[in-house]
Amino acid sequence: MKLGDGVEQAIHSVALLAGLRADRVLAAAALAEFHGVSQSYLLKHLQALSNAGILATVPGPNGGYKLATSAAKITLLDIVLAVEGTAPAFRCAEIRRRGPNPLPAVATIRPCEINAAMLKAERAWRNELAKVTIADVLSSVAANDRDGFIDARVCAFLELRERHQPAP
Amino acid sequence: MKLGDGVEQAIHSVALLAGLRADRVLAAAALAEFHGVSQSYLLKHLQALSNAGILATVPGPNGGYKLATSAAKITLLDIVLAVEGTAPAFRCAEIRRRGPNPLPAVATIRPCEINAAMLKAERAWRNELAKVTIADVLSSVAANDRDGFIDARVCAFLELRERHQPAP
Repeated sequence: MKLGDGVEQAIHSVALLAGLRADRVLAAAALAEFHGVSQSYLLKHLQALSNAGILATVPGPNGGYKLATSAAKITLLDIVLAVEGTAPAFRCAEIRRRGPNPLPAVATIRPCEINAAMLKAERAWRNELAKVTIADVLSSVAANDRDGFIDARVCAFLELRERHQPAP
Repeated sequence: MKLGDGVEQAIHSVALLAGLRADRVLAAAALAEFHGVSQSYLLKHLQALSNAGILATVPGPNGGYKLATSAAKITLLDIVLAVEGTAPAFRCAEIRRRGPNPLPAVATIRPCEINAAMLKAERAWRNELAKVTIADVLSSVAANDRDGFIDARVCAFLELRERHQPAP
């Protein structure tokens, strides 16, 4: 089982955007540059985050991305489902109904016990991810950023690359 | 995130082999036939289950597979890790160290908070899977097999296709 690289890039991008001031945005090119990743690949995931209502897109030559809501309302689960889709990891193909002697339909009304156990484990995974918000991650990062390297890196980058959005 | 189809086939195969009598084995062809799946694809997973010590292989023209240990000692986690590998689903690529202004090594000694949160969720998932043994699954199946369809299907198949292993 493997989550795509897009999950890591998406979570880090949302965390970086959480540092923007209220009237600022970051272009996809800046997000890709900061993280040293392919812009075309990242764009696909930024689009997925926009579609899921996690990011807002400001169009135009001075446009870019910003959070659509507060970092305290965005969980790791929201981001994982936006990027990876909402289907469970285990997808029961009902092999009980295959082969030369399949189970009759009446015996498969009740979900397969294997599927039920796999879905229960997935719920435990999702519950853990739903407990952690981007605000929690940033708070934990800040608490452990003893020499200020992480904060300095983000501030220097945003100072150079964030774009100001004039009030409409 | 998606688990391969092999996981479902492997769990069902182990559950079927748990129904064999002590001195019997089933050939890969019989396991593939019962589940209506590709034998060549299933063989790869049976090999992985053997490598992980879940199945034992009896060689020879009358050979086949049987459990290497009791069904009460084989968990869903054992099977998932045997088939999918033991690497976690989230694989941190340390993108903190990329880009034009990477974090210095001293600031990345502590694991990334995002990686830590993702691994915590994976532990919750694995813990759930580790709680469920094949014996538990079979016991739950039997408890809900009111018309005996499932038991009858397995018994009829094993009666026809299981192979007797004479004592050495």
